[in-house]
Amino acid sequence: MSSDISQVKALVFDVFGTVVDWRSSIIREISAVGKQLGVDGDWEAFADRWRGGYHDGMQSFRDGKRGWMTADTMHRERLDILLSEYGMTGLSEDETEHLNKAWHRLDPWPDSVAGLTRLKSRYIIGTLSNGNVGLLVNMAKYGGLPWDVVLAGELAQSYKPDPKVYLSAATLLGLEPGEVMMCAAHLHDLHAAAKLGLRTGFVARPTEYGSGSRKPDLVADDSIDVAAETYDEFATKMGV
Amino acid sequence: MSSDISQVKALVFDVFGTVVDWRSSIIREISAVGKQLGVDGDWEAFADRWRGGYHDGMQSFRDGKRGWMTADTMHRERLDILLSEYGMTGLSEDETEHLNKAWHRLDPWPDSVAGLTRLKSRYIIGTLSNGNVGLLVNMAKYGGLPWDVVLAGELAQSYKPDPKVYLSAATLLGLEPGEVMMCAAHLHDLHAAAKLGLRTGFVARPTEYGSGSRKPDLVADDSIDVAAETYDEFATKMGV
Repeated sequence: MSSDISQVKALVFDVFGTVVDWRSSIIREISAVGKQLGVDGDWEAFADRWRGGYHDGMQSFRDGKRGWMTADTMHRERLDILLSEYGMTGLSEDETEHLNKAWHRLDPWPDSVAGLTRLKSRYIIGTLSNGNVGLLVNMAKYGGLPWDVVLAGELAQSYKPDPKVYLSAATLLGLEPGEVMMCAAHLHDLHAAAKLGLRTGFVARPTEYGSGSRKPDLVADDSIDVAAETYDEFATKMGV
Repeated sequence: MSSDISQVKALVFDVFGTVVDWRSSIIREISAVGKQLGVDGDWEAFADRWRGGYHDGMQSFRDGKRGWMTADTMHRERLDILLSEYGMTGLSEDETEHLNKAWHRLDPWPDSVAGLTRLKSRYIIGTLSNGNVGLLVNMAKYGGLPWDVVLAGELAQSYKPDPKVYLSAATLLGLEPGEVMMCAAHLHDLHAAAKLGLRTGFVARPTEYGSGSRKPDLVADDSIDVAAETYDEFATKMGV
């Protein structure tokens, strides 16, 4: 592992999975709505398929089939399909919109707020997510995430791993790519950032996908600049 | 004064003059450099003319003569002219860039941090400035400004009072214009926002221009939704 991090001035974080535990939070919200409606179902599968709507929406953009959309839009489209499939009828439009914004109310992993707070004392800390700005701002208010700046694919009208998303973070901060570190629990995100000259930080989230079929990245590879088990340890390695 | 503010979810602030005392801060920095170089001069006039470079640069964009530029670029162009005129030679490139970033190190007015911190407990609080994102982020780190989100003309590639800058704030936050309040010490900024349906908040900054020729707005007019003498009083009026 290399460790030339002396030039780093800003840390930008992937959010879903890296900073917040989207799956447990979504399962909690959707199962509560199911109970309210008197519907039983496989809520883990519901959560994974809801999440899949976001990935499918981004892929349709990458394939040139659709224009840029907010995560909110992608979530709502898939939610409407799932509610119908699960026979969850009777929600008002306001209730459905509130449920769709469950993605704005995702719980931070236990070490996130403390780790970010430590890192903020020395670095600019920001998001760099494919979620839309409004979603990320609301999530930060909900979970107490102390971002200095909310950056997102939305500001480049694209999605990671499009190079222009990573480069937009450096440009907007007035920094060189090598002064920005991408932090994520997903190696593919870090590899895409590293190709452009950003530094990389990795903390595994072994339970991100729960019992779902997708497998988490458990260990960093040699290309990663800084890796740690928790964001507390990561802050220590970053000299805070 | 009307006061239909029950729908407001986010407050976006003008920054130069409204949140920070740019003139005193710039006079302090440039006079220190003058002393270091053994040059005496009218540092108030220097500050006002430096600030004028920013206004002139934005006007050249509005007139279609130049493309969009960061405040950093506009500041640097005028700085180079002023350093030459004042006979301030001998600064290295690094020293000149550091001096140019005096605009990233502007002191908050005495009530800004406490008022914003109170408002943050109930509202999303953000910038909506013609300064670039990197400048605003660095300024927040310097002055302890607790923004939830850093919004700027840069994100719409234009400058206030272009409607698309105000509307971009609502769009990025996922809010209707009437759910966003523009806060400023400058009535022209608030009038432009109000035309688009944003709510408006005013706190005067009587000493913004010091002994310069420009005159501050001292009182709100009937179009302003909420006006106060300080941001502490403003927070109280906003129900915090």
